[in-house]
Amino acid sequence: MPNNNSTNFKYSAMQNYRVYIIIFLLFPLSFFAEDGSQLWLRFPNVKNGISADKIISKGKNPTLEIAKKELATYWQGQAVELRTDKSLKYLKDGYTIKSSLEKVIISAGKESGLLYGVYHILRLQQTKSDVNHLNITEKPSYDVRILNHWDNLDGSVERGYAGKSLWKWEDLPNTISPRYEEYARANASIGINSVVLNNVNASPNMLRTDYLQKVKVLADLFRPYGIKVYLSVNFSSPKVLGGLENSDPLNKNVQNWWKDKASEVYKLIPDFGGFLVKANSEGQPGPQDYGRTHADGANMMADVLKPFGGIVMWRAFVYSPSKEDRAKQAYLEFLPLDGKFRDNVIVQIKNGPIDFQPREPFNPLFGALKKTSEMAEFQITQEYLGFSNHLVFLAPLFKETLESDTYADGKGSTVAKITDGSVRNNNITALAGVANIGEDANWTGSIFAQANWYAFGRLAWNHELSSEQIADEWIKMTFTDNQKLVNPVKEMMLSSRETAVDYMMPLGLHHIFAFDHHYGPEPWGNIPGGRPDWMPVYYHKADENGVGFDRTKSGSDAVSQYFHPLNTTFGNIETCPENLLLWFHHVPWNYKMKDGKTLWEELCFKYDSGVKNVREYQKIWDTMEPYVDTERFKHVQSKLKIQSKDAVWWKDACLLYFQTFSKMPIPYDIERPVHELDDLKKIKLDLKHHN
Amino acid sequence: MPNNNSTNFKYSAMQNYRVYIIIFLLFPLSFFAEDGSQLWLRFPNVKNGISADKIISKGKNPTLEIAKKELATYWQGQAVELRTDKSLKYLKDGYTIKSSLEKVIISAGKESGLLYGVYHILRLQQTKSDVNHLNITEKPSYDVRILNHWDNLDGSVERGYAGKSLWKWEDLPNTISPRYEEYARANASIGINSVVLNNVNASPNMLRTDYLQKVKVLADLFRPYGIKVYLSVNFSSPKVLGGLENSDPLNKNVQNWWKDKASEVYKLIPDFGGFLVKANSEGQPGPQDYGRTHADGANMMADVLKPFGGIVMWRAFVYSPSKEDRAKQAYLEFLPLDGKFRDNVIVQIKNGPIDFQPREPFNPLFGALKKTSEMAEFQITQEYLGFSNHLVFLAPLFKETLESDTYADGKGSTVAKITDGSVRNNNITALAGVANIGEDANWTGSIFAQANWYAFGRLAWNHELSSEQIADEWIKMTFTDNQKLVNPVKEMMLSSRETAVDYMMPLGLHHIFAFDHHYGPEPWGNIPGGRPDWMPVYYHKADENGVGFDRTKSGSDAVSQYFHPLNTTFGNIETCPENLLLWFHHVPWNYKMKDGKTLWEELCFKYDSGVKNVREYQKIWDTMEPYVDTERFKHVQSKLKIQSKDAVWWKDACLLYFQTFSKMPIPYDIERPVHELDDLKKIKLDLKHHN
Repeated sequence: MPNNNSTNFKYSAMQNYRVYIIIFLLFPLSFFAEDGSQLWLRFPNVKNGISADKIISKGKNPTLEIAKKELATYWQGQAVELRTDKSLKYLKDGYTIKSSLEKVIISAGKESGLLYGVYHILRLQQTKSDVNHLNITEKPSYDVRILNHWDNLDGSVERGYAGKSLWKWEDLPNTISPRYEEYARANASIGINSVVLNNVNASPNMLRTDYLQKVKVLADLFRPYGIKVYLSVNFSSPKVLGGLENSDPLNKNVQNWWKDKASEVYKLIPDFGGFLVKANSEGQPGPQDYGRTHADGANMMADVLKPFGGIVMWRAFVYSPSKEDRAKQAYLEFLPLDGKFRDNVIVQIKNGPIDFQPREPFNPLFGALKKTSEMAEFQITQEYLGFSNHLVFLAPLFKETLESDTYADGKGSTVAKITDGSVRNNNITALAGVANIGEDANWTGSIFAQANWYAFGRLAWNHELSSEQIADEWIKMTFTDNQKLVNPVKEMMLSSRETAVDYMMPLGLHHIFAFDHHYGPEPWGNIPGGRPDWMPVYYHKADENGVGFDRTKSGSDAVSQYFHPLNTTFGNIETCPENLLLWFHHVPWNYKMKDGKTLWEELCFKYDSGVKNVREYQKIWDTMEPYVDTERFKHVQSKLKIQSKDAVWWKDACLLYFQTFSKMPIPYDIERPVHELDDLKKIKLDLKHHN
Repeated sequence: MPNNNSTNFKYSAMQNYRVYIIIFLLFPLSFFAEDGSQLWLRFPNVKNGISADKIISKGKNPTLEIAKKELATYWQGQAVELRTDKSLKYLKDGYTIKSSLEKVIISAGKESGLLYGVYHILRLQQTKSDVNHLNITEKPSYDVRILNHWDNLDGSVERGYAGKSLWKWEDLPNTISPRYEEYARANASIGINSVVLNNVNASPNMLRTDYLQKVKVLADLFRPYGIKVYLSVNFSSPKVLGGLENSDPLNKNVQNWWKDKASEVYKLIPDFGGFLVKANSEGQPGPQDYGRTHADGANMMADVLKPFGGIVMWRAFVYSPSKEDRAKQAYLEFLPLDGKFRDNVIVQIKNGPIDFQPREPFNPLFGALKKTSEMAEFQITQEYLGFSNHLVFLAPLFKETLESDTYADGKGSTVAKITDGSVRNNNITALAGVANIGEDANWTGSIFAQANWYAFGRLAWNHELSSEQIADEWIKMTFTDNQKLVNPVKEMMLSSRETAVDYMMPLGLHHIFAFDHHYGPEPWGNIPGGRPDWMPVYYHKADENGVGFDRTKSGSDAVSQYFHPLNTTFGNIETCPENLLLWFHHVPWNYKMKDGKTLWEELCFKYDSGVKNVREYQKIWDTMEPYVDTERFKHVQSKLKIQSKDAVWWKDACLLYFQTFSKMPIPYDIERPVHELDDLKKIKLDLKHHN
């Protein structure tokens, strides 16, 4: 019946179509690529949420609409009432949640609080926690919970390992990537309320009118998610962009230029957050170019932002190629300026005195500036921790700094309390994290790097959360609540930062990274004629007697920048914590450690332990295969292989190199090196992600 | 006093000169490079030996002179008498040694026996054994103890990993390298009495008159050391070199050409040993090119050599790209020819039926040719065992074949006994080893590869020596008799071949090497359109059901080439030795092994065990540092690093590849792979030593 062919075909095609629909309904998840693009926002079953009549709220507001939409799409429990309540203003972005079997009531002083509350109950639902007997009050630890993007206008990301920048400057303001809103939603879900869009090594062009119009589009998109936009600014902008004779902060023309620019910005973006400034650091221009101080520079900008409610985050990351120990320089520079900053200036201080090393003591500036608002800057992107290849959960690193007791205002004045306003009456409280986000489908270059974005957000919201709590939440949200996965993966995550320290630079070693890219080991690094303070040998000072940087009174005396009793604790080799020993002391190779081993043996065992742990992570992860989708399973498996090889690379490079000084055998119960030192010295990485 | 300067300078230079002489006398060893060039011939203290009046001998003969010179230079014990005794002719190259505190008496039927006896007592002295109460009778296991050099006339060495050829054909006959005699001495010291100078893939030019004149020089140099020269010949020589119409062995002109050539050879070298022939194999010409048999070809050559006492070693290594299992082809080809070979022909049979794999069952031809002399061919050079990079002591491999019971003439008719004349009345007895020698200072590309040259020589002399005895001798001679080194190094050597099998191809797997260079793993190897029998997939036949080559009756039936009871033992999966399981059977992945593990698990554990053992060898060797000179210590250390990395490479490649069929997890208590299968597939080695 050839004449019927056409009809038959249509009928059959229609049947197939139905079959597809049925399959789609049965296995909805199998149709999405498990590429990590959903982050931790993997609400159960992707079924619809509750019906509109079960969402009770008054008024109309874009933020409220988002909160309601999230409930309508994902909330599967009882009715939810969203209440704005002026009496709760004191909670700032915070909220209360009370619930019964019949209803959840979320109350907040403003709509952003309600949205955060909604994400709170969705998180409880997703982690299979009880949602029927809630009585919660949440108030964020910091007012400004801010991501610093080191994204350049050309689309590259400095120290970014997740592809190009998320911001498509060439397409803006006309074409809008759907990822902008996804990004805002992800931030809102963990409490991040501020973002600096561009690199601290800032292009003056960022302030060009055409770019500001692009920024406005992003600000408009982010606003309903409670997120304010900030910009990094180049101190030379008046000269470079405005054509002025200089950028001297005491020059009236310069001041007027900034004033006009601020007006322009706020006309476009009325809730613009403010400026982030890297000045007179690593070649960036700054007030010192004109004989002015950091305070002069910061205040000039603060004055123009003040009328609009904007703030200046002024980075304390300054050092120059002087004879002075690099670790001391920021403190020496800023201490004399204490009390000279406007009240809308906050000094942004890297967690440690050098530069985001696997382990540093806290920066002695914390607490030392008694009349100045201080904020900590963490690096979420893993510049010094294996890029997006190594699994290193950073909550323990962040917490280590936050919980460090500065003793500035007596015992208990931790970095957290110095910066969150609880021991001092800070004008501004803030916590910054250098973002690890790029255009990769999985956002951060690896699945486990997402946990660091998550952890930063959660800690900026509540620095009292434990690393274990954060890991627990993230694992359950990202993978499953099956304890067969949760427990081993949590164990792996919680030990992972110490493991990385062990195979990279244990016992206080620091900055022995390969020049420039900071990925692999290069303890031998010493470019003739190069800046000494950019050379690994400057930092480890290994010789036949021992290894480590003497920062005691007999050395650079960096210990004296710490308050009592830390100055003496750190300064005495017997009381200095062993995990910072080589940071503060030049220690003989045969120095007896607390466990009875010599320093050399201890060093060997630490490196070896790092390698062993990564191998253990491989085992742990491989046993997770039944509980994870194939795509993400293989992705992580593959990254761990790289980390495992890299750990051996680190171990061999450092032990073989330091052995040329210690002249002692690597203890014979340790797995032997498989590399030749000379071969390792020849490795030149050509990393795509290095920019 | 400037006028005195010149004199002062001279005086001072002279003083220095004296100081140098004194230092030289005090530390004589420290002035020699410990580059391994001395092999195992490191006689103690390099002092002078006994005085001439303590060496008693009659007659004058170049071999005797060498024996006396060795004593005068190195023997530090009592007087030594060297006696030729016609009644000892039955010992062939053998000898007797009797000693008291006053005198050692070495007696032999011929001078070569006396030289071997001298090396015997020097070995005893060097290994610190008793030399005062000796009563020894030695008779070699094989008459012809022969090295096969696969050296080409262009100076390259096929499957050689110790640099270029030792033979400088371009310099000969006029320039004579001192290494020719050192080479002869080394061979004599371990009983090797024959060498084939050139590659079995022979150039016809080898028989050119100018080349024969070069060969004559070497033969003259080797003769005093008891060594006869042989040549590999190209079957097409009459046509290619002589310009004849063909090389048909039944062609009178061809026969005459060979007759004339033999006369020419023997005129130059009266004790010339004979020809080694690779015919109709891997593209080499042979009698089958003219419709003749291997016997026709071998006999034609045997007839021309017979008048001069020469022999033909005819290789049984033949196979063609047919549908027949490659492992069966030599047997099928040669069995019908049994009884048809002249009595001065010996069939040279590779130890296994494929090609020098890490482990093969013995070649079923052994014992099967009942009326033909048979000899075994081992490979000393490590074509399939990690080149000169991997530490693999081959005595256990050699012994495994030699001690294999063929059951050809009833129980106990081992390969050793079939070939040494003890169960059959062989016309010729011989053992061949493909040399691992090149122009590298250390001769064999690595120190431990020297042990394989040593082991081959010692086993050809006495196949009843245990691997342990040989290793013990070699270690003491090469390094030290300090038990702190001897015992651990021996342990390492004795297990090293099994370790290599484990990390390369355990359980009977074979020939899954990378195409052509045979160094790394390539189990996926399958070049479209290539010869199937050169492809790894041909040999392992992995599929979803299992892995292994079914050579039972239901498969290729290679098992039937073995005598009873081996045909049934090998043919039955339950009785087949597990270390040959996949050689003879296609085994399901979940087959239960004797230890209760599945085949897949067992395979994983074997690979892992190989890796672990190499790491253990690294530890063992590193602890030897106090007992070995730095140069050789570092050399071996460096090789072991390569082996350690290679073992992981092998393990990962094979497990990840086979896992694509087994679809089972690698047991979780095993160290995880650190490579991606796809990356491993891309590795293309460009090995300098591959030629």
